[in-house]
Amino acid sequence: MKLVKTFDKKIEIGDFSFEKGLMIIAGPCSIENQEQMFQVCSFLEREKIPFLRAAAYKPRTSPYSFQGLGTSGLEIIKKIKQNFSIQVISEIVDLEHLNFYRQYVDVIQIGARNMQNFEILKALGKTDKPIILKRGFGNTIEEWLYAAEYLLASGNEKVILCERGIRTFEPMTRNTLDVGAIALVKTITKLPVIADPSHAAGRHDLVAPLTLAALAAGADGVMLEIHPSPSQSVSDREQALGFEDFSKLLKKIQTIGPLFTRDIIHSP
Amino acid sequence: MKLVKTFDKKIEIGDFSFEKGLMIIAGPCSIENQEQMFQVCSFLEREKIPFLRAAAYKPRTSPYSFQGLGTSGLEIIKKIKQNFSIQVISEIVDLEHLNFYRQYVDVIQIGARNMQNFEILKALGKTDKPIILKRGFGNTIEEWLYAAEYLLASGNEKVILCERGIRTFEPMTRNTLDVGAIALVKTITKLPVIADPSHAAGRHDLVAPLTLAALAAGADGVMLEIHPSPSQSVSDREQALGFEDFSKLLKKIQTIGPLFTRDIIHSP
Amino acid sequence: MKLVKTFDKKIEIGDFSFEKGLMIIAGPCSIENQEQMFQVCSFLEREKIPFLRAAAYKPRTSPYSFQGLGTSGLEIIKKIKQNFSIQVISEIVDLEHLNFYRQYVDVIQIGARNMQNFEILKALGKTDKPIILKRGFGNTIEEWLYAAEYLLASGNEKVILCERGIRTFEPMTRNTLDVGAIALVKTITKLPVIADPSHAAGRHDLVAPLTLAALAAGADGVMLEIHPSPSQSVSDREQALGFEDFSKLLKKIQTIGPLFTRDIIHSP
Amino acid sequence: MKLVKTFDKKIEIGDFSFEKGLMIIAGPCSIENQEQMFQVCSFLEREKIPFLRAAAYKPRTSPYSFQGLGTSGLEIIKKIKQNFSIQVISEIVDLEHLNFYRQYVDVIQIGARNMQNFEILKALGKTDKPIILKRGFGNTIEEWLYAAEYLLASGNEKVILCERGIRTFEPMTRNTLDVGAIALVKTITKLPVIADPSHAAGRHDLVAPLTLAALAAGADGVMLEIHPSPSQSVSDREQALGFEDFSKLLKKIQTIGPLFTRDIIHSP
Repeated sequence: MKLVKTFDKKIEIGDFSFEKGLMIIAGPCSIENQEQMFQVCSFLEREKIPFLRAAAYKPRTSPYSFQGLGTSGLEIIKKIKQNFSIQVISEIVDLEHLNFYRQYVDVIQIGARNMQNFEILKALGKTDKPIILKRGFGNTIEEWLYAAEYLLASGNEKVILCERGIRTFEPMTRNTLDVGAIALVKTITKLPVIADPSHAAGRHDLVAPLTLAALAAGADGVMLEIHPSPSQSVSDREQALGFEDFSKLLKKIQTIGPLFTRDIIHSP
Repeated sequence: MKLVKTFDKKIEIGDFSFEKGLMIIAGPCSIENQEQMFQVCSFLEREKIPFLRAAAYKPRTSPYSFQGLGTSGLEIIKKIKQNFSIQVISEIVDLEHLNFYRQYVDVIQIGARNMQNFEILKALGKTDKPIILKRGFGNTIEEWLYAAEYLLASGNEKVILCERGIRTFEPMTRNTLDVGAIALVKTITKLPVIADPSHAAGRHDLVAPLTLAALAAGADGVMLEIHPSPSQSVSDREQALGFEDFSKLLKKIQTIGPLFTRDIIHSP
Repeated sequence: MKLVKTFDKKIEIGDFSFEKGLMIIAGPCSIENQEQMFQVCSFLEREKIPFLRAAAYKPRTSPYSFQGLGTSGLEIIKKIKQNFSIQVISEIVDLEHLNFYRQYVDVIQIGARNMQNFEILKALGKTDKPIILKRGFGNTIEEWLYAAEYLLASGNEKVILCERGIRTFEPMTRNTLDVGAIALVKTITKLPVIADPSHAAGRHDLVAPLTLAALAAGADGVMLEIHPSPSQSVSDREQALGFEDFSKLLKKIQTIGPLFTRDIIHSP
Repeated sequence: MKLVKTFDKKIEIGDFSFEKGLMIIAGPCSIENQEQMFQVCSFLEREKIPFLRAAAYKPRTSPYSFQGLGTSGLEIIKKIKQNFSIQVISEIVDLEHLNFYRQYVDVIQIGARNMQNFEILKALGKTDKPIILKRGFGNTIEEWLYAAEYLLASGNEKVILCERGIRTFEPMTRNTLDVGAIALVKTITKLPVIADPSHAAGRHDLVAPLTLAALAAGADGVMLEIHPSPSQSVSDREQALGFEDFSKLLKKIQTIGPLFTRDIIHSP
């Protein structure tokens, strides 16, 4: 593997930097309506979580599944930015929306299915927005780092890697969270790495242990699915945490997190 | 799995139809120059192979690898169409090229990495070009059929599935050709299914046995990498067949192929 | 990979040798009673199939599943040998039964779960019985060849490899038959390789195409599950062929089989 | 999955019980000589680690690799028990050694390759020794729990599960440590679960993060490879920790370990 870009720049998002703490992102699987999103934002404000996950477009396996609210979802993102001082993370699926994302979205997510969508990588490489690059569920660590390299080589160095589980023969979990990959990439690159335990687990009772495992392995943050009432979620309802469970998990993260030695692992 | 579109329409490409015979596609990994392509076209004419694989754009894992000739590759495709009466198959990686593909390319390929690039699927679903939809190396059969469904639901029923090997724990072959998938999809859909043994094998000495295995499992055709002098190939040189080896394999296909009972498997 | 034993000896089993034809083995998943087995033997005699699959012991995932008839199954094997001139293949699970197998069983099978049971390998390496060594569903080609090497290095050179599918992320088939492995091992070793399409497929409608695919890839034979009335089978009923379906498949094998060039692939 | 035995008995080994703390096991990949083992035992005494990993027999992929010291390794185990008050964990590969293990070994390990060696499972099920049952690298969680059920159903309820990584398409780590499996089995069974990060990682720089990740996911302990001078280790030298690195890791475990809420996960 020949990675040409050796990255060593701080990523700052609003008041946040990875040196100050863990990047905790939370939000529903998809934007359902304004009320739901405002509820989530108020909750996150109370919990002092500065990052909201807010998906207007959902890449879905079947063309007959709910595909996200689309344009009216983007309108809700606008209203969120007008009413809350929260950083919005949103997945881009079509470069035609890029202007909107530039204006209203704080961190652009490249989803697992688009990790090797090189046109998206090259286009986002030309923006100055922080990017969360999810590892594809069928992609190797090498391919993941090379996908990051597409962004870096195009000029955007604000790349945050996100491990979200890989596809294995094991059928009892949705995917297998590859904590070894989190630890390994930190020996190769200085890019921050976060984890998405919700998608890896596919069931809410495994989200807390996988979150702690990812952080223990050296992750710089986690992205968690939460919902005001998980059983009413339009998609992925099995894996979303309710507010109360999220608050409990947050307390554990705050107690244990500072004890993990991200820096030591980071520069070996 | 709920597939709404039950497909039962004949796909005709030039003089070819799947009822008349196997779809044999051959060509180099990528367009290198006009001379190379004209050599291949003349050879295919002599062998009465009506389908040329001709890639101007190559999605590559690393941004530092050869990415295809790009625009000048498209120019070469134009010249091929002016000088030979061969059907050109070419992979699309960017919807900005769609107009060119509509005019000069006979069958548009969606590569493994773009199988779940839903924007490409939806856009090509609105054309009337035959589409070869490769299975992603990390994708299930269900996801592959749903990707086809994106094309069908958008109005394009000329979909040809292509199995090209999946990623497994076995390191001695590049990928594992899933011949069971070829047989299985024929019990679910009436779409034709071809195979790409070259990419699955990753080494030329396995291409012949995998080609015969795919046809024996019920494949309606194969796509094969050939090169005037494989050792000079710019990319994937280990898996390309020379002209002589290709001619030998073709004789085996012509002897054995008609004995495989595609129809019986097809409509059980 | 350093394989010390380069094998080049003919394996003869009764009147059979791999140079004369394909090794076709058939029989039920397990011995259920004498009547069932005699029915199968008479059928195989009529079809001129000289090899019977007859399992008295079944290694089962759950301790609460049917584990085979055990000792009374061995008694039925004795009676088969007294009444039919058929070669019996049977899996050994416990070295305490080895004396019986030496006396009444013609070909001893080492099952997928025992491929790396090195005590069994070393003990069978000291017998002169032909051995069918199944590839473990989680084992690489390298491990499979080294397991064979345990037999060869202990002195038994009558080793027949058997590919039976590997475990992958694909959930729609029981396992993924690795036809590339069949072709590949023939470039490395001169040991014969057969396939077990029934266990790979896990469903009877895929058995015929997978059988033909394995032979097309160069397999020297196949082991097939058949049952007088598949729906009554005590175990693995989904994948057993009835007598009529087996006879149809046999005709295809007899027509197409001789056209596959095992020898050419064998010595490249 | 129908697990008949619902286990709820405390496992006590010497002064240790899982209620009092984490089970930390350390030792070399294999017994090399008495001096090496005595060095390790003295070190573990100083660190107050009561469990020694001591393998006399090594199941090896190739028959030409070092297979362990065998009988003279067993002699060294005897001397360890005479000179140190340490609990010895040793893998059994042949039931002929069972008498020795009953007398001198405190915890018997069933290795990954023997997880579905049902004869060993049934025989050990009839002893009253605590058993560490490693998950096979190609086995599902369901198969692992059923293998445990073979032990439980035979009468031995002192079963400790051990996750050691599964085989996936990722080539940069030896195996993929399945931390989700650790968390998941705790929702199904009350058996203790430990992890073997050394074998999963295959490289020493990932052992510390994987150890912490396993504990964070709820593991009740870890088994770690250590060696007086790792670069001199006869086998698996890339993954062994030196004494100093082990001591550093131990301090992290002692600081962070008590904060993980094994019990809460345990009884949800």
